[in-house]
Amino acid sequence: MQDASLLQRYREVRAGTHSLVAPLSAEDCTVQSMTSASPAKWHLAHTTWFFERFVLARSDPAHRPFHPDFEFLFNSYYNAVGPQHARESRGLLSRPALDEATAYRTAVDERMLELLDRPTLAPDLGAIIEIGLNHEQQHQELLVTDAKHLLSCNPLRPAYNAEAASTRRTSTPRVQWLDFHEGVREIGHQGGGFAYDCEGPRHKVFVGEFHLADRLVTSGEYLAFMADGGYERPELWLDAGWREVQAHAWRAPLYWEESDTGWHEFTLGGMRPIDENAPVTHVSLYEADAYARWAGCRLPTEAEWEIGCASAPGSATCAHGFLESQNLHPVGAPDEVVRDTREAMGEVWQWTGSQFRPYPGYRPPEGAIGEYNAKFMCDQFVLRGASCATPRSHARITYRNFFAPDARWQFSGIRLAKDVM
Amino acid sequence: MQDASLLQRYREVRAGTHSLVAPLSAEDCTVQSMTSASPAKWHLAHTTWFFERFVLARSDPAHRPFHPDFEFLFNSYYNAVGPQHARESRGLLSRPALDEATAYRTAVDERMLELLDRPTLAPDLGAIIEIGLNHEQQHQELLVTDAKHLLSCNPLRPAYNAEAASTRRTSTPRVQWLDFHEGVREIGHQGGGFAYDCEGPRHKVFVGEFHLADRLVTSGEYLAFMADGGYERPELWLDAGWREVQAHAWRAPLYWEESDTGWHEFTLGGMRPIDENAPVTHVSLYEADAYARWAGCRLPTEAEWEIGCASAPGSATCAHGFLESQNLHPVGAPDEVVRDTREAMGEVWQWTGSQFRPYPGYRPPEGAIGEYNAKFMCDQFVLRGASCATPRSHARITYRNFFAPDARWQFSGIRLAKDVM
Amino acid sequence: MQDASLLQRYREVRAGTHSLVAPLSAEDCTVQSMTSASPAKWHLAHTTWFFERFVLARSDPAHRPFHPDFEFLFNSYYNAVGPQHARESRGLLSRPALDEATAYRTAVDERMLELLDRPTLAPDLGAIIEIGLNHEQQHQELLVTDAKHLLSCNPLRPAYNAEAASTRRTSTPRVQWLDFHEGVREIGHQGGGFAYDCEGPRHKVFVGEFHLADRLVTSGEYLAFMADGGYERPELWLDAGWREVQAHAWRAPLYWEESDTGWHEFTLGGMRPIDENAPVTHVSLYEADAYARWAGCRLPTEAEWEIGCASAPGSATCAHGFLESQNLHPVGAPDEVVRDTREAMGEVWQWTGSQFRPYPGYRPPEGAIGEYNAKFMCDQFVLRGASCATPRSHARITYRNFFAPDARWQFSGIRLAKDVM
Amino acid sequence: MQDASLLQRYREVRAGTHSLVAPLSAEDCTVQSMTSASPAKWHLAHTTWFFERFVLARSDPAHRPFHPDFEFLFNSYYNAVGPQHARESRGLLSRPALDEATAYRTAVDERMLELLDRPTLAPDLGAIIEIGLNHEQQHQELLVTDAKHLLSCNPLRPAYNAEAASTRRTSTPRVQWLDFHEGVREIGHQGGGFAYDCEGPRHKVFVGEFHLADRLVTSGEYLAFMADGGYERPELWLDAGWREVQAHAWRAPLYWEESDTGWHEFTLGGMRPIDENAPVTHVSLYEADAYARWAGCRLPTEAEWEIGCASAPGSATCAHGFLESQNLHPVGAPDEVVRDTREAMGEVWQWTGSQFRPYPGYRPPEGAIGEYNAKFMCDQFVLRGASCATPRSHARITYRNFFAPDARWQFSGIRLAKDVM
Repeated sequence: MQDASLLQRYREVRAGTHSLVAPLSAEDCTVQSMTSASPAKWHLAHTTWFFERFVLARSDPAHRPFHPDFEFLFNSYYNAVGPQHARESRGLLSRPALDEATAYRTAVDERMLELLDRPTLAPDLGAIIEIGLNHEQQHQELLVTDAKHLLSCNPLRPAYNAEAASTRRTSTPRVQWLDFHEGVREIGHQGGGFAYDCEGPRHKVFVGEFHLADRLVTSGEYLAFMADGGYERPELWLDAGWREVQAHAWRAPLYWEESDTGWHEFTLGGMRPIDENAPVTHVSLYEADAYARWAGCRLPTEAEWEIGCASAPGSATCAHGFLESQNLHPVGAPDEVVRDTREAMGEVWQWTGSQFRPYPGYRPPEGAIGEYNAKFMCDQFVLRGASCATPRSHARITYRNFFAPDARWQFSGIRLAKDVM
Repeated sequence: MQDASLLQRYREVRAGTHSLVAPLSAEDCTVQSMTSASPAKWHLAHTTWFFERFVLARSDPAHRPFHPDFEFLFNSYYNAVGPQHARESRGLLSRPALDEATAYRTAVDERMLELLDRPTLAPDLGAIIEIGLNHEQQHQELLVTDAKHLLSCNPLRPAYNAEAASTRRTSTPRVQWLDFHEGVREIGHQGGGFAYDCEGPRHKVFVGEFHLADRLVTSGEYLAFMADGGYERPELWLDAGWREVQAHAWRAPLYWEESDTGWHEFTLGGMRPIDENAPVTHVSLYEADAYARWAGCRLPTEAEWEIGCASAPGSATCAHGFLESQNLHPVGAPDEVVRDTREAMGEVWQWTGSQFRPYPGYRPPEGAIGEYNAKFMCDQFVLRGASCATPRSHARITYRNFFAPDARWQFSGIRLAKDVM
Repeated sequence: MQDASLLQRYREVRAGTHSLVAPLSAEDCTVQSMTSASPAKWHLAHTTWFFERFVLARSDPAHRPFHPDFEFLFNSYYNAVGPQHARESRGLLSRPALDEATAYRTAVDERMLELLDRPTLAPDLGAIIEIGLNHEQQHQELLVTDAKHLLSCNPLRPAYNAEAASTRRTSTPRVQWLDFHEGVREIGHQGGGFAYDCEGPRHKVFVGEFHLADRLVTSGEYLAFMADGGYERPELWLDAGWREVQAHAWRAPLYWEESDTGWHEFTLGGMRPIDENAPVTHVSLYEADAYARWAGCRLPTEAEWEIGCASAPGSATCAHGFLESQNLHPVGAPDEVVRDTREAMGEVWQWTGSQFRPYPGYRPPEGAIGEYNAKFMCDQFVLRGASCATPRSHARITYRNFFAPDARWQFSGIRLAKDVM
Repeated sequence: MQDASLLQRYREVRAGTHSLVAPLSAEDCTVQSMTSASPAKWHLAHTTWFFERFVLARSDPAHRPFHPDFEFLFNSYYNAVGPQHARESRGLLSRPALDEATAYRTAVDERMLELLDRPTLAPDLGAIIEIGLNHEQQHQELLVTDAKHLLSCNPLRPAYNAEAASTRRTSTPRVQWLDFHEGVREIGHQGGGFAYDCEGPRHKVFVGEFHLADRLVTSGEYLAFMADGGYERPELWLDAGWREVQAHAWRAPLYWEESDTGWHEFTLGGMRPIDENAPVTHVSLYEADAYARWAGCRLPTEAEWEIGCASAPGSATCAHGFLESQNLHPVGAPDEVVRDTREAMGEVWQWTGSQFRPYPGYRPPEGAIGEYNAKFMCDQFVLRGASCATPRSHARITYRNFFAPDARWQFSGIRLAKDVM
């Protein structure tokens, strides 16, 4: 019999997605709040279609699709598979109903579990199922951040879960600067365990001496940047960033609102006063970059980040603040975690100063799966780490997340680096 | 005791709206397919807010709103009342849920029925309730046309009601031209019965001799226009219309689709082959005007329309094809209705060549209700008659409906007029 | 020999256009400041093309165009003639140079004068030449208003002619209300003299009793409207107008600027302090309508305007303030003009409350000339009178000018009407 | 006495700019064809303002500006200096006239030459004058490419210079692949000679083994890509590139037009048949990247490019095809140049796969000059080499040019690289 753990993981991941929509109504699951975000219902169906199309249809030539139109409706961007429903129109799909999307999940799960229960599984199917599970975990995070965006657009400011965002750190640890010497290092994924194509090949890079902050920038620190005219001083900004500031009248991170009683932020638990001890989040690359310049620092390159966070003792284990905690808001690693890279993973994604380009020697996989990452290697910046909406088992030191530099609706934050002078 | 019929009508109209959403899911009721259209849930709540704000809050100074934010969310455009949620964002409101909107209706209905059951009712309240009921009937029609638009955006082309659009006329009556002599006539509302402010004052107009077609233009006739290059010949079009044709690649009425088996149209009963005997519908003023020019005719002015349709014996009684028939698609008056203005009311709204401007001596009512029609007296054309989505009791010979000249999602059609030469 | 006056008028009108570009550089003549406006060079060439295409090419079958591409470049909107260079791209034509456009004028003038000097002229050619001269006079006004718009976009605020806008009225005459009784009247052009197709046929209208102000609204009165919150009170505005106010942050007429020393306006003579005695100008239909509502009045219909201005003794003769005065800015008729409709023509165009639609019995001429007015009979409001940029001989009591309700770059102003109560 | 060569270079560079506008009329020099391009008149004045503001005003505290508004009008993007006239409105400036811009140049040149003729010059002024000359050379290239774009928008397709683009290569050299071994190398500027801030600091990079083509891709090769469905196959494109292809209906490089007699391209000499032997140009990064993928190759990183082109014997000297040749169109290096990196510099800029980010240890200069490059280090790709519109003395092996990935109006082309497998 084949790997029992794959079957078990399939059950767990799929159930995890299901649990994320529990606090949402059918209406919540249907609306699309902006082109970059998708309705929860679409996430439910698209992740299901992924298994149907890339596993079931391949493993059984006689496979009949659950619904003849679902491939068109729920193919996200795989041109090799065929044409797709327009991304900006996903919110027009009041049908299929949430119930039908759920039924679709159930039907595909039945066949998938049957497949996974067979004595043997073709190796390529195992690999693609592994991708499918990681794919679904990515969509779990998007489902949460997209739901947050939708709820934030509602003047009622409804909570996703009233318990969320209720944990707070009691103080802000002093920043310590970790030193790294120059030299040829290796970064990128190699060997056992799952990784996306874009995380490899593992390759040599030359890195000069640098310092890396041992913790994330906090909301309190970010407030000081704001108080110092951060959003009014063009000299702090990249030109494209300054244009965004002007065009959209940015004066604080996304979801922040100022009232008579000070700054508050919309969280998945509803409106909350700003927690000055917590890592700042919902900032764009532009804001992260401007903050770093204001602080006399810079953002790390992705190589520096990977070298820095990989080499710090215990970095991988000390992280907390993943999706499973259900706090769904960054808190910051507690004080007792010492001599370490706090929040190496979890809490918030960390903008790097590196644009998302292929690693030396990279080749996309054959077929539609080759579109998964490769065609986006342009116009986006790499974020490293993971966030409070990332499933724990989805985080990796070599993980390359990427978003456009103006994106703010992800749990994105800031870790500083600086040159040695 | 006061007028029992008002209470009775209140019950009927409100129940009527409720029945219209029965075929729709919570998801259907939430999505907004374009800025001009509103979600069904919004229609349910807005019409309720109208009674709460203009009747309950006035009749009882101690009235506490059902929800503190509903005035902001469900005030459509009454600046005199206060600021409003942006029209284009109505579809972002996944909350309040459909259930809450329904609870809102129930709560307001209870208080309204209590009020209507009292021995006396202040006359101004009676008048505003009458407006509120007519207002709700207008929204019933919009709810249907907005739902049709939403469903049409779905690649699944789902039916609102599979029984709709199943009645068909078996032949097309021959057109007869009704003659009207020149002279000073009167048009506009006067005397008993409800009418909107913009339908009066009744006033004299001078009208030259003209001919009016005794029936509506059919889809079969419109197909001949299309076959004769109607959408490719700029000389047939108003300049603004020709720009729409180019910009949106119009080549048929809205909802028409050409396939290997000929032209079909999306109806509230799903996709149907074009019925050549039925009145053409879902055409803009531009298309109506171009068709008329192609046919060597013109659109009637609204004075001509009112004179022509009011004077034809039996015009008011022969009409059929209102909302109550539940066909929700034009059929055309049957052959046995002779010597008459067929389809004077019902089937489809009829574009006139008149722009919506105030009648001589018109003054808008005081207060917020003055915004109901007056501020829209610009940039819109008048449509007369009524449609298969209009409640029967809402149709009037003096009724002035109005839409922008590029609007196509209403049940709008064409009656021809011509000069006497 | 044919009508010598036509030859004489041809010379005068063509020379008049030439004199208007004298204060402009080649650069000024080339730039297009917005889609609605055209470069002076384009006006020079387009009016020339009109004679070449509609007169020379018709009168001589062997006519060879001056330049093979000029028909494409300088046909404005005659679809019956052929495709046209995109209106919004007229400012990209740095070639042909101004010199070439002038050479084009000279060449066509030579042939035209030769034609006009012949003993006989086909009657239809005479008629089209008459249209061509009126057409050119229209473009003279546009050339001036388009140049004003261009210069206003320049932070240097350069004057077209430093002498312009230097005449001022010393006081504001008291408003007197002229009374007109109800009845069937006739409006529209008939009989001798040139008129555009859209000015006829002369026809009967029924008009109720009304009052018409004997003079135009002044800038001083408009300042009072502004001081009373005119631009901040939605109840004064048409809905479409209020949206313009919001979208473009309107708070004064076009070209007005507030400084430490009060309100100034950009004129063709450069920046000038507001003249409170002069008729207000550069207002949209929306502003004219809002002002009238604020003043407890309304705009006249075009029938009322024509009846009122035609019947006032001496109205046609007392007007001054045309293009020939070279003041190029409204002044207002002087006090000694009594018991009259001051500024019936000249000074500023007067917005009416009537949308531009065909008169009863109107038929556009055959051929391309039929596009001159007919296809624009939609979405525009009629302005009556004439302005300080209109050639004197171009003004007529039946003249129907028309612009979109948001247009402000013409010399457009306000005359009030009111109902008798 | 100070460096005589600086005075001499000042004279030459300034005169060179002047000669570039000789073929252009005042109208040509005024129009702006798109936001990214500037009118020639603006280039003339802006480069002059650069010397006035950064040299004259610094060297003489009593300096009075030539015109009080020119700083506002001709400051391109230096926020540290003050607010700027909107970039997209540069074409509205019909004033100052071309003559005034020329007078401005003369006046500033007089003072600059006086300054340069003094016995000593403060070292910081010498450095900024050096930047100013390089800045002006950059604008010489932009002046040419912007003029080309403007003329291309004119349906007359006028030539800038009828002699341009008349040289042709008679054959296409066979591609040879140059091999480079892996290792730590150094790139970036160091030591003597002028370089922009962004070209340094010189720093170590690790580069794996790679192959670099010894010549540029030709139009003939690009035609094969087109013939093979290059613009219709999404799998060849970056996602953002494919969206551009769809949105703008790209099917060939900019300026290419297909006619009955095959493909032609607009050049500064007018329309010319495609020269299959010449390097392809006017392609975006997206097209360069798609072509490379189609060819089974990739674009070089900027490190690979610099290593490859710097190390090839004679690479710097064999290049021809700069601005001075006045051909203003790529030709390709002739066959007799063997065992070399053909067209290392000159002919067309070469897209690299590297986004424009700061080199390790980079710090922008203090003050306004710090905005020269630093704030654009985002969202742009690096191009290396130089083009037929680059002044010879402006080309450098370490030069980092940068444009957005969709830019096509520069002389941009393709050199291929590939991995060793």
